[in-house]
Amino acid sequence: MIYSSTDNNKIKDIKKLNQKKYRDLNNLFLVEGEHLVEEAYKSNNLNNVIILEDYNFNIEKDNIVVTDKVMNYITELDNHQKVMGICSKLKEKEYGNKILIVDGIQDPGNLGTIIRSAVAFSFDTIILSNNTVDLYNSKVIRASQGMLFHINIVIKDILDEINKLKELGYYVSATKVDSGNDIDILKEKEKIAIIIGNEGNGVSKEVLDNVSSYIHIPMNSECESLNVGVATSIIMYELNK
Amino acid sequence: MIYSSTDNNKIKDIKKLNQKKYRDLNNLFLVEGEHLVEEAYKSNNLNNVIILEDYNFNIEKDNIVVTDKVMNYITELDNHQKVMGICSKLKEKEYGNKILIVDGIQDPGNLGTIIRSAVAFSFDTIILSNNTVDLYNSKVIRASQGMLFHINIVIKDILDEINKLKELGYYVSATKVDSGNDIDILKEKEKIAIIIGNEGNGVSKEVLDNVSSYIHIPMNSECESLNVGVATSIIMYELNK
Repeated sequence: MIYSSTDNNKIKDIKKLNQKKYRDLNNLFLVEGEHLVEEAYKSNNLNNVIILEDYNFNIEKDNIVVTDKVMNYITELDNHQKVMGICSKLKEKEYGNKILIVDGIQDPGNLGTIIRSAVAFSFDTIILSNNTVDLYNSKVIRASQGMLFHINIVIKDILDEINKLKELGYYVSATKVDSGNDIDILKEKEKIAIIIGNEGNGVSKEVLDNVSSYIHIPMNSECESLNVGVATSIIMYELNK
Repeated sequence: MIYSSTDNNKIKDIKKLNQKKYRDLNNLFLVEGEHLVEEAYKSNNLNNVIILEDYNFNIEKDNIVVTDKVMNYITELDNHQKVMGICSKLKEKEYGNKILIVDGIQDPGNLGTIIRSAVAFSFDTIILSNNTVDLYNSKVIRASQGMLFHINIVIKDILDEINKLKELGYYVSATKVDSGNDIDILKEKEKIAIIIGNEGNGVSKEVLDNVSSYIHIPMNSECESLNVGVATSIIMYELNK
């Protein structure tokens, strides 16, 4: 069958996945475009393909065939893609030796960029604080270029988690804009966790009080700070060299 | 006087500066918010302060006092700021030894981030190709955090400019995602120009054919590419170490 009505309950339920509340309720999220659907498929997170009628796509997965009007209704993009995917949320995996902790990033583009760089520079886990922008926000997913399917990402109370990591022998370091050690001090540690903060306010005070050290990136004094996605990527790049 | 009508020609002309066509015609552009107005003032680019009636601000510069309604009409933001600035476009300055060449970046956030990082890592000049997103687009200015006032930025035919730079003894290198030399090869050169490309397509073929070398950033093969703002910032960071 071809879904042609935006009044259909199944179609309405799919569209609701654009809202965090319904993503959390159903443990599902949407991706748009062939590349992201393929990435979801490869990582076993794909439940259904939503596909435009008369379009051919190489992945068959309980396909939901829709008209142009319905695709336009579901999409968050100005111009819809030809395929979308309904995906299961990521399952928690075991932590490795290189962990990034995100304390309250708000901009979806920044979080997506950080996920992309974390995969590029071989970090194995990202822990998001509860007040970080939703991982399954479509802008985060697009900015990550699908890299969210290639890394362990969990959402936690980060203060609890930092204490657990310290007990497990992780060297926990927070970034600061104005002062701290050179990134090199982390290179000799076997297990590290690096905390990055919110765009405007940096890492929160309670978190700063609980870390083993601060690190910062040296820069020209004419510039107050770097974009948080850039700063985080530079640190991960250094630790991957 | 207080401008209270959006029908006023002066107010209409100011609002038109949100469009590239009128910015080019008048050689002017707008900035929003105290921080950006202060940066424009310090760099001698500020012509007028647009200020909300009854608001106090420490800079007086041929102030144009407006009502809330008029500020709301002029702004590109969802919630207007209390001050805006009308600024003269940047004047071309002499090139130093560290030049970044931008070949067709389209996303204003990416260009703004790159400008911010270029100041942080002591590059002295940015050359933008004619098909790069407009430097005076409000999103570029916001993402740059006002750093556009701290660096020489020019808009040129970059193929011409690359040939001139080579004659002047610059070592001209282009970034490539998949292959090229380590960034370290640039560290021994006295005068360098680094070319970065468009988000989807990278550096254009005609440009690649005209450079002295390619450079790339080593990364995990699971990730195809970095965000262009991140990649550019990492290269500039390395060259500032």
